[in-house]
Amino acid sequence: MGSNCPSETAGKPIKCKAAVGRKPGEPLVIEEIEVDFPKAWEVRIKILCTSLCHTDFTFWKMTSGPVSLFPRIFGHEAVGAVESVGEHVKEVSQGDLVVPFFQRNCEECRDCKSNKGNACSIFPIQFYGGMPRDGTSRFRGSSGEALHHFLSVSSFSEYTVVDVTHVVKITQEVPVDKACLLSCGVTTGVGACWKVSQVEEGSTVAIFGLGAVGLAVAEGARLCGASKIIGVDLNPDKFEIGKMFGVTDFVNPASCVEKSVCEVCLSLPPRFLFHFLFSFSLSFFGLCRLLVFNDQVIREMTDGGADYCFECIGLASLMQEAFNSSRPAWGKTVILGVEMQGLQLLVNPYELLEGRTVAGSLFGGAKAKSDIPMLAQKYLNRELCLDGFISHEVCFEDINKAFDLLHQGKSLRCIIWMDK
Amino acid sequence: MGSNCPSETAGKPIKCKAAVGRKPGEPLVIEEIEVDFPKAWEVRIKILCTSLCHTDFTFWKMTSGPVSLFPRIFGHEAVGAVESVGEHVKEVSQGDLVVPFFQRNCEECRDCKSNKGNACSIFPIQFYGGMPRDGTSRFRGSSGEALHHFLSVSSFSEYTVVDVTHVVKITQEVPVDKACLLSCGVTTGVGACWKVSQVEEGSTVAIFGLGAVGLAVAEGARLCGASKIIGVDLNPDKFEIGKMFGVTDFVNPASCVEKSVCEVCLSLPPRFLFHFLFSFSLSFFGLCRLLVFNDQVIREMTDGGADYCFECIGLASLMQEAFNSSRPAWGKTVILGVEMQGLQLLVNPYELLEGRTVAGSLFGGAKAKSDIPMLAQKYLNRELCLDGFISHEVCFEDINKAFDLLHQGKSLRCIIWMDK
Repeated sequence: MGSNCPSETAGKPIKCKAAVGRKPGEPLVIEEIEVDFPKAWEVRIKILCTSLCHTDFTFWKMTSGPVSLFPRIFGHEAVGAVESVGEHVKEVSQGDLVVPFFQRNCEECRDCKSNKGNACSIFPIQFYGGMPRDGTSRFRGSSGEALHHFLSVSSFSEYTVVDVTHVVKITQEVPVDKACLLSCGVTTGVGACWKVSQVEEGSTVAIFGLGAVGLAVAEGARLCGASKIIGVDLNPDKFEIGKMFGVTDFVNPASCVEKSVCEVCLSLPPRFLFHFLFSFSLSFFGLCRLLVFNDQVIREMTDGGADYCFECIGLASLMQEAFNSSRPAWGKTVILGVEMQGLQLLVNPYELLEGRTVAGSLFGGAKAKSDIPMLAQKYLNRELCLDGFISHEVCFEDINKAFDLLHQGKSLRCIIWMDK
Repeated sequence: MGSNCPSETAGKPIKCKAAVGRKPGEPLVIEEIEVDFPKAWEVRIKILCTSLCHTDFTFWKMTSGPVSLFPRIFGHEAVGAVESVGEHVKEVSQGDLVVPFFQRNCEECRDCKSNKGNACSIFPIQFYGGMPRDGTSRFRGSSGEALHHFLSVSSFSEYTVVDVTHVVKITQEVPVDKACLLSCGVTTGVGACWKVSQVEEGSTVAIFGLGAVGLAVAEGARLCGASKIIGVDLNPDKFEIGKMFGVTDFVNPASCVEKSVCEVCLSLPPRFLFHFLFSFSLSFFGLCRLLVFNDQVIREMTDGGADYCFECIGLASLMQEAFNSSRPAWGKTVILGVEMQGLQLLVNPYELLEGRTVAGSLFGGAKAKSDIPMLAQKYLNRELCLDGFISHEVCFEDINKAFDLLHQGKSLRCIIWMDK
């Protein structure tokens, strides 16, 4: 619960430690920085713990392009306590336990008021390295230079400032490390099942990529009552891990025997006149090999195709594979991974005509301000299982170990404790 | 209402006239043919009227490939009276007014029993030129040769035989020419709004291609209460025609000034960090021009993108344009056109991630046995407007005029009367 007494630091800059990304791909440097007091509509948060998501990793390694900004404070999954608030901020106050998040949610714009989707269109201009309202930074390095923000959160710092549209209060009952998971990855996966797809009881689900997001999809599918949850991953260890989250079957693409396009076409349930025509055309255009990875395997495991397929990596080829694995008539493929190569998803229009759908979503279609507290409550009710996602924990000084673990494929979520 | 007295012709072959496609693209030849009596699960129908759909035209012109079959009896939009039925047929009987249809609906398989989609998986094998159950033909030409069926209907004949899963009884109150429209095109367009998209009151809709299917989408959108219905067509005459079906705004791609990809990107509501990255990547890959037709125009007309976009032609590039014109956060693009060039739809994964969806459907997601009678009732209730779709009428002997009119882009639907 918030306090009415202003903190001693309210209205003043705070000096604190932050892990600053100085150069692409180089270890973060723990430095003393200065964090401005929050302006109007802003909230300064004392971070309690944060975790490393693959998106941090991707941007940390990015060497060029307009969104490769350094020096920068990364981090966008976190839990903290409100230290002070700026003018006009009513919904949180000092001492509140809060979750910051990247997917803005003003609750007032046309998008937020709609019950479809989770975009927020309150700000007309997007600033990539600053505060979302005016584009300026609240962080200064030791030489007084501005440090870039990341995804409107920047949680790899003892203190951060976020816009009020990027933070939500949660109950003090939730352990902070579990709440931290709801800030991005787990909500993305669970939300994709529950909000974007509305997976029904008895459905078949195929998940491409069993990282934290993919495993959260499995957890969401389990919660929705899916009867078969197929995990697809190149790492065979992921099957045992996946079982904890409800994965019932496992496909390792490396052990799938490739079949010719003709074998695939002949094995498909033939629904209309164009299957053969298309296969001939595709052969002609040399696209055969794009069609023949796991999709036949998954179609066989699910009596014609999975009801729901989820792509959780961000590879255009895997998105296509997921689509090809979905059931005619009503198969829905949901894209969660962010494709960073600039490649396009190739969709066979006839496969669409058979009744398939492809959808995409950021943050699992969740509206953060209502859905994060609701998922926290589901955790407290022992409906949502969060424990298995935390594979490692480190203290703030060892934040670079979290990067190493992720790079080596060893961690799901590594919790980084600020005060330990 | 059906009669219990068997017709005089029941159980025997019938000699009658049919318009036979002998060679690709050559005028149909009115010939005397023999139509077998219906086998078990089959229904012989005396066709009252039929109409020409673009799919007939496409297959009639097709010179090669496994689904280019001649001699053949085309036609798949029709109304008729049941002449006799084969063993096990209970749901229709002699004298019933019926609509045959191409999109099978057994009402018993897993697909038919599901409330999602409109596929039917009763038959494990698809025969392209014969009856759906055993692949054989019920038609013989003057030399005794088998004539191929088309889409399980073959209505360009005074009599035809269809499987019981391809026919539905309708009330005698509906004028037969109006009922004929429900057999394919109009149901496809109306169904796409009402079953596949569930267009809400006040929605914005963009329709790419104002042929009969596109105009039926407009009619469906009007019925659903859409507030803005934008028609996109190269033929400026289509705007006046479109107004009859609820089209409120018109875009002629020929008069849209092309803008550079940079102009487009800068004008988009910037929601996340990847817009610019993507535009650079796309520029690099030379894909700029694919992005820059109508989508910006439609985004401007709809405050960011249409809630629902429908592609009704079957061009992969137009499908992409429709997708690009859809609103972030919840824009849904529905593909109705059949792409016959073997081309793939290119989808920008980031545009999907913003919350867009692409879906496809055959026959507008309608389940023929329940939805055709329901739409007929909506016509009788003066809710569904069907009158404007019939642009021309010819007698059976003049069936080739219907092909000419369609080829010249002059007709929406040309009713071909068998007995006039």
